[in-house]
Amino acid sequence: MKDGLAEVADLDARDPLAPFRDEFRLRDGLIYVDGNSLGALPKATAARLAATVTEEWGEGLITSWLGANWVGAPQRIGNKIAALLGAKAGEVIAADSTSVNIFKAVTAAASLRPDRSVILSETTNFPTDVYMMQGIEAFSGGRLKSVTVDPDAVLDRLGADVAVLLLTQVHYKSGLIRDMAEVTRRAHERGVLVVWDLSHSAGAIEVDLNGANADFAVGCGYKFLNGGPGAPAFLFAAERHHDAMPVLSGWFGHASPFTFEEDYRAAAGVTRFLCGTPPVLGLAALECGVDLMARADMRELRKKSVRLGQLFIERMTARCGEFGFALVSPADPELRGSQISYAHPHGYEMVQALKERDVIGDFRAPDVLRFGLTPLYLRYADVVEAVERLRDICVTRAWDKPEYRVRAAVT
Amino acid sequence: MKDGLAEVADLDARDPLAPFRDEFRLRDGLIYVDGNSLGALPKATAARLAATVTEEWGEGLITSWLGANWVGAPQRIGNKIAALLGAKAGEVIAADSTSVNIFKAVTAAASLRPDRSVILSETTNFPTDVYMMQGIEAFSGGRLKSVTVDPDAVLDRLGADVAVLLLTQVHYKSGLIRDMAEVTRRAHERGVLVVWDLSHSAGAIEVDLNGANADFAVGCGYKFLNGGPGAPAFLFAAERHHDAMPVLSGWFGHASPFTFEEDYRAAAGVTRFLCGTPPVLGLAALECGVDLMARADMRELRKKSVRLGQLFIERMTARCGEFGFALVSPADPELRGSQISYAHPHGYEMVQALKERDVIGDFRAPDVLRFGLTPLYLRYADVVEAVERLRDICVTRAWDKPEYRVRAAVT
Repeated sequence: MKDGLAEVADLDARDPLAPFRDEFRLRDGLIYVDGNSLGALPKATAARLAATVTEEWGEGLITSWLGANWVGAPQRIGNKIAALLGAKAGEVIAADSTSVNIFKAVTAAASLRPDRSVILSETTNFPTDVYMMQGIEAFSGGRLKSVTVDPDAVLDRLGADVAVLLLTQVHYKSGLIRDMAEVTRRAHERGVLVVWDLSHSAGAIEVDLNGANADFAVGCGYKFLNGGPGAPAFLFAAERHHDAMPVLSGWFGHASPFTFEEDYRAAAGVTRFLCGTPPVLGLAALECGVDLMARADMRELRKKSVRLGQLFIERMTARCGEFGFALVSPADPELRGSQISYAHPHGYEMVQALKERDVIGDFRAPDVLRFGLTPLYLRYADVVEAVERLRDICVTRAWDKPEYRVRAAVT
Repeated sequence: MKDGLAEVADLDARDPLAPFRDEFRLRDGLIYVDGNSLGALPKATAARLAATVTEEWGEGLITSWLGANWVGAPQRIGNKIAALLGAKAGEVIAADSTSVNIFKAVTAAASLRPDRSVILSETTNFPTDVYMMQGIEAFSGGRLKSVTVDPDAVLDRLGADVAVLLLTQVHYKSGLIRDMAEVTRRAHERGVLVVWDLSHSAGAIEVDLNGANADFAVGCGYKFLNGGPGAPAFLFAAERHHDAMPVLSGWFGHASPFTFEEDYRAAAGVTRFLCGTPPVLGLAALECGVDLMARADMRELRKKSVRLGQLFIERMTARCGEFGFALVSPADPELRGSQISYAHPHGYEMVQALKERDVIGDFRAPDVLRFGLTPLYLRYADVVEAVERLRDICVTRAWDKPEYRVRAAVT
């Protein structure tokens, strides 16, 4: 039945990242393949949050803004994230949500191209990216226009009217990786600035923002960075764009927030892209996740991610080949982020049935089963076992159970 | 020396809010008069956060979005805040920072007055309010203009060109209360919509948003609501304005966020003013503070706040009258929020010296000592003792100590 298991055990035994699994709180028996939606809990986080709450807030009270350096957290954590992404210290802050940071980055980039009107993206981009563009268009009073085209048509659409291109590096549904350096180069040739959404990249694949000559980027703290539910997001602005004026010009982006000046003066550097008071508790949890990620070798991480993906596909072919799954992710591992997605007409019901068998993945409409492969805490044996449990569902047609046939309002 | 202490002990003994103090973690000896900058830690918060982290995130992982109803937290907590502010359920959400919510509320209000161009505020408003207006002006491409006038000139400036008036109900420095109902009435007479910043009102004074026919409001979770450092803020939109289109049109404000539609469709009600993924950890802490506040009778709270303020002023007159303090707050308690501010040329040094004597207040440039009086955990005896320690500083001229003469970069 389970052929090749000796080789799999060997892969786990020789995995240089294997010790990281013990840094996470993960129940025995659970196979968590949804780290691309919400990363698992690092064991260090609970103690860190308890200290932040009880000691820093409870004891230090207001003095902890300086005493515990809460005030420096957005930059300090930003610098740690920068190191993961090929950016320099001083180019990244941790703040707000990804959506809000998209607004900041796109409006800042657009302000650097005042003679151009189009904000371009692809039709299948993660919805909030496009929604934010549509809000920007509506508010701009005709100056800016949100345009989406088919993924294949993006590069051809880079005309002289395009101010900003907003793209996600790793596609949320398929896992397809965009070539950041090449797309950025071609955009720059046409005078277009690029905002990269790294939500499914940061902590998942090797990213080299400055190597790609990137302009702006944003990304999510609660996926592969394991920063916790609704963790603060991050924003990257290349040093050469640090004179761009922020639209969300709040007091924490001011050059001197605590002298209470009447007029906005933007802080130097990426700090100007802060807005309101930093979310201290969320930042504390995020820092634990980032610190853990910082200890991992990103090259090893990527290597393992690719192997996990290959193993997953091999096992799916061998064990579930007859059940009509269609690979949605690119077959070429070079083109694929740290996830594997399959389409199946009973995808929704299967994801529910998997949950009952303690395999947590997720579903994306209309028919996609998405399996996040997080090399920091997933074992090769987990991948094998996940496919076995899926096979069991297919063999027994577990998806025919009536409780799986009613779709929840929220999927 | 300390005359009238028996009466003070009696006030504490008969204080119906006295039991609340024990709900907070507050060190013996500490007199914390900075709850208007960062509220104290409710004892319940540490356990709640530990459960949110370890059980909901650690055990429930992604399933807690529904299983622990993370997804409903912004509205659930919003409804609890609504009850404190004279708003209806469904009119308030907890989300983002106050600054970001100012952006949302002001742009939404402006969109309802497309034929008017001025966003008006007062020169002495809390800086981030005005900074956000300036960002809105810069981005609007000439459509909107940020105008500030002297506080006394605001009502006269309400001309036919004014779209939105942004005012803070309780002034951050002086504690002066604006008459929300009267200002709103006069603004509406001139066709102006009003956005109220309730950062120093919520949990501090009685607020009646719908009684005042308010349009929009925002406020802070980390002051009198005791939601923790950088807690999520809140936004109120009167039901009649629920068709206004949000500029920050993120996926959590979408009518159906989890079906991943390509175009933005605003959710019904105040939910459309959500933007990105809710900050679950910050919301959990905020809810503990709000739950505690919800148990207090706001009328009793206000009554005690007024008495604490009167006592503070009486003691200052009696014990520090000769040292040249000038009352910055209104002498009339009806016009004053839950704080007392004095100006003194050595204000900065005094605030530092008070800290060494375990009295934590704060300083606002150029010369204001600000004492937040939080009726939920401050005792009348604390007020008396705070003034005694200040007197000691004045008598011994403790502010002449060289370490107080160097101003920190952040004050």
